[in-house]
Amino acid sequence: MTVRISPLIDRLIDAFRILPGVGPKSAQRMALYILRHNRAGGRTLADALIDAMERVDYCRRCRNFCETEFCNICADERRDDSLLCVVESAADILAVEQAGGYRGRYFVLHGRLSPIDGLGPDALGLDRLDALVGAGGVGEVILATNTTVEGEATAHYIAEMLRDRGLAISRIAHGVPMGGELEYVDGGTIAHALRGRRNLAVDG
Amino acid sequence: MTVRISPLIDRLIDAFRILPGVGPKSAQRMALYILRHNRAGGRTLADALIDAMERVDYCRRCRNFCETEFCNICADERRDDSLLCVVESAADILAVEQAGGYRGRYFVLHGRLSPIDGLGPDALGLDRLDALVGAGGVGEVILATNTTVEGEATAHYIAEMLRDRGLAISRIAHGVPMGGELEYVDGGTIAHALRGRRNLAVDG
Repeated sequence: MTVRISPLIDRLIDAFRILPGVGPKSAQRMALYILRHNRAGGRTLADALIDAMERVDYCRRCRNFCETEFCNICADERRDDSLLCVVESAADILAVEQAGGYRGRYFVLHGRLSPIDGLGPDALGLDRLDALVGAGGVGEVILATNTTVEGEATAHYIAEMLRDRGLAISRIAHGVPMGGELEYVDGGTIAHALRGRRNLAVDG
Repeated sequence: MTVRISPLIDRLIDAFRILPGVGPKSAQRMALYILRHNRAGGRTLADALIDAMERVDYCRRCRNFCETEFCNICADERRDDSLLCVVESAADILAVEQAGGYRGRYFVLHGRLSPIDGLGPDALGLDRLDALVGAGGVGEVILATNTTVEGEATAHYIAEMLRDRGLAISRIAHGVPMGGELEYVDGGTIAHALRGRRNLAVDG
């Protein structure tokens, strides 16, 4: 049973529920918290929302989110143009960047091939990916879509699409996570890790 | 290490962090989620925030949140005027209402006596509580502040303040929660439950 408070507060609680991971109880807590403790913060959030909803678009080159023509990464001349990492979401770029070590470019699909959801090659911008690779300069495309059935299918579709471009096409390695114990890793991951085994160079 | 995305998106992520229970990772997820999947919802949330921040105030009678002169509960003529339940927050009203069974009125302190935070009787509206009770019609004041040190102190302060008004003053019962197992209940609660024990009426 939900208790109604007042029309404006009820509307605010309902509005918070659009956010991922926010249920009725959290939404209520958020609304009452900012009403009591941080109205200035609530106004700041409203302004930030309006600006972002209106002005954030896709980067013209890589489809990352940004409000300028090209995103930070595409605008950075120190990045390696010869490497292109294809990811499902903008959050995946952040994950790779936070891991550190990668200095190439990205391309964001904003989804994965999923006919059941009406997501085909056009929705994922695959024509633009094809044109970007066709424009030259890319030596290797790293397919970093997720290891789900759809993510795998998407990786294979892209590999097929770029087959005749004469460049290296790779898939990120799948296996036992760093620090992971075999005992607690699922069978599919272990099978992948075995198939993907690498020779150990032993000196002496 | 936080990766910066774009000024507008970074600002949105920072703004989400004012919400209770939202850390950097959740804030990032919220921002990217609404940008990708629900811009209309983002605008609705912004509008709801602006309206609520501007127009929600305290009920003139009980200090519950509302945008009208009197809140829903104070405006409801079917409620029992003789019972007044004093709570720390508007969320506590919702908890009592959701539990069902209580049909009296409320008074919201929006806090508890806490000299260290500069919260004295004025900040809690105790003068208004005194005036409300003094206006007559209230037969019993139920002190439902939390069982924290400050909540107890606040309850005692109010009881003292209203001592000469000639009405019943009660404190909600503290003890083992319904469905709770003694084994897992903390010692302070068990001590309270023992001191607050009641005679069982046994028939026959």
